[in-house]
Amino acid sequence: MTFTPLCPSPIQHHETVQMAHGAGGRLSQALMQRVFMPHLSNVFLDLLDDQAKLDLPPGRTAFTTDTYVVSPVFFPGGNIGELAVNGTVNDLSVGGARPLYLSAGFVLEEGFSLSDLERIVKSMAEAARKADVMIVTGDTKVVGRGQCDQIFINTSGIGIIREGSDLSCRNLQAGDTVILSGSVGDHGMAIMTSREGLSFQSRIKSDCAPLNAMISSLLDAVAGVHAMRDPTRGGVAATLNELAASSGKGIEIEESAIPVKGEVRGACELLGIDPLHVANEGKLIVCVPAAEAELAVEVMRQSEAGRDAVIIGSVVGDHPGMVVMRTPFGTRRIIDLPLGEQLPRIC
Amino acid sequence: MTFTPLCPSPIQHHETVQMAHGAGGRLSQALMQRVFMPHLSNVFLDLLDDQAKLDLPPGRTAFTTDTYVVSPVFFPGGNIGELAVNGTVNDLSVGGARPLYLSAGFVLEEGFSLSDLERIVKSMAEAARKADVMIVTGDTKVVGRGQCDQIFINTSGIGIIREGSDLSCRNLQAGDTVILSGSVGDHGMAIMTSREGLSFQSRIKSDCAPLNAMISSLLDAVAGVHAMRDPTRGGVAATLNELAASSGKGIEIEESAIPVKGEVRGACELLGIDPLHVANEGKLIVCVPAAEAELAVEVMRQSEAGRDAVIIGSVVGDHPGMVVMRTPFGTRRIIDLPLGEQLPRIC
Repeated sequence: MTFTPLCPSPIQHHETVQMAHGAGGRLSQALMQRVFMPHLSNVFLDLLDDQAKLDLPPGRTAFTTDTYVVSPVFFPGGNIGELAVNGTVNDLSVGGARPLYLSAGFVLEEGFSLSDLERIVKSMAEAARKADVMIVTGDTKVVGRGQCDQIFINTSGIGIIREGSDLSCRNLQAGDTVILSGSVGDHGMAIMTSREGLSFQSRIKSDCAPLNAMISSLLDAVAGVHAMRDPTRGGVAATLNELAASSGKGIEIEESAIPVKGEVRGACELLGIDPLHVANEGKLIVCVPAAEAELAVEVMRQSEAGRDAVIIGSVVGDHPGMVVMRTPFGTRRIIDLPLGEQLPRIC
Repeated sequence: MTFTPLCPSPIQHHETVQMAHGAGGRLSQALMQRVFMPHLSNVFLDLLDDQAKLDLPPGRTAFTTDTYVVSPVFFPGGNIGELAVNGTVNDLSVGGARPLYLSAGFVLEEGFSLSDLERIVKSMAEAARKADVMIVTGDTKVVGRGQCDQIFINTSGIGIIREGSDLSCRNLQAGDTVILSGSVGDHGMAIMTSREGLSFQSRIKSDCAPLNAMISSLLDAVAGVHAMRDPTRGGVAATLNELAASSGKGIEIEESAIPVKGEVRGACELLGIDPLHVANEGKLIVCVPAAEAELAVEVMRQSEAGRDAVIIGSVVGDHPGMVVMRTPFGTRRIIDLPLGEQLPRIC
């Protein structure tokens, strides 16, 4: 008997995602070969196994996951792919881990442009290179039109926690200094203004960036860092509240100390949103003993991601679990958790 | 100054998912406390940190990811939550790893029933207990109505590869025996018949199950296992083709040896679908040297998941990269990869 050779990949006839791209058959393979592998190829992914086999360096392992559903998919300063890599890199980093390996799980809507998908995948590859991590395993599902909004990306990540590191909200001590790595609200307002078509605000760009290099320098230089968090969903307000709630300590911040760019403040006022409630994607909140605060700020400022680092307040023994802000007029107000309706699909 | 105590959780007024449940604010916390933590609580998840910190046992680490978008969410024999746990457990297991830790990333559609969500989360907890793994980190996003179809779940997983294990499609040798752990097509046809409203086929139940216990027994007893795969999307046909393509060997199977339940065969005929193209979620294909095949089958049959294990064919030196099936009439046909349109959103 003779066998007909396999016909050439049928994907070349498609410019958009087809249901069959997600069904595990020949079109799934073709999508891998045409869109994913040219950008993401590495020794792990090239094996196309169901799992990556990794030799982790010694140390405790950090493991995290996040699904990204940001809308619009492309926004000033970044896109969903870059965000998905940086967000998971940062979630590992704030735990004191060196991010090493990422997974990528895609849900694609039938009809999504394959060239847009390729732009996104390319951004992921670039972000991974910049953050010095590898995307080692992945998955793609396709759903019908109207069953998802263009593209969702899950990234999970593995990192190795540096020896002796014990970062946790529960370490906070009254007297600790609270440091913020830069201006707040840039990511969220970049999304909101592009979504609302506020083109005069177009100078606002997302701060989407990897924090691992800055965090690594900081932990090298400052032994006593108690806790770190990246103020993403719910903004600085949510992160400070988590820190206060988990530690059972109070936090006091100075309104005048918190950097907010003029155009971000303007857009927030226009939309009636508190900048402290707006998501960031390249910012860090650090709690250190007061004696080490100046050094920490200095080290952070040497990194691109921490150029505008400032002290914004301190941990206090009063009002446990609560965050209080002192205004320039001398009054104080509670910074509560946002209820959350304001900014859907910000990340 | 005095502070007003925080008001009670507002989630009690909701029976469905609200946009605010995904925004990182107070409703997100309430969703965690009411729906997720009662079922998933463990020493890692209880910390509510951005990452789990794990002490992995020695050995190479396996890492995998899958997003589940199955429709309907509840199907005969299981639901999306159980599937999401078992699927990732199986992807680790077929690489020779002992599955240990899972992440869970949810995308929820606004308006999805909170009681359905709780049923799903409860199933995930039960499936995790059954497979002896822990869900240690998670994430929840909410998107608007019409922006996703009810619920998507990503699970990523970490396992430790057993010492000396080197399972890979590339290990296949001409002469190896190909074993299948049981009947094919159950999962896919359970989904299809419930989706198409073919109620007379209602005896068809998904085979969704964890394979790690059976695989562990098999690897304990049989030293020479060359490769294992779970034939999910694309069915047995896709998996055999992957094995053939990756190894550069040919595979020959006997049609009469492949177990297909009567009701599954009937539904396949009705819908014009080849059972070999239909997804399974609790089946295993194993390639072992012929000398160890009988022992392997015997060991597999001692597990619930492998009760109906049978030899279905062998690896051959002819027709490299191709899968050929011998029919009961003595003819031979190529088993090709499905193009893939037939069975969308099967997992």
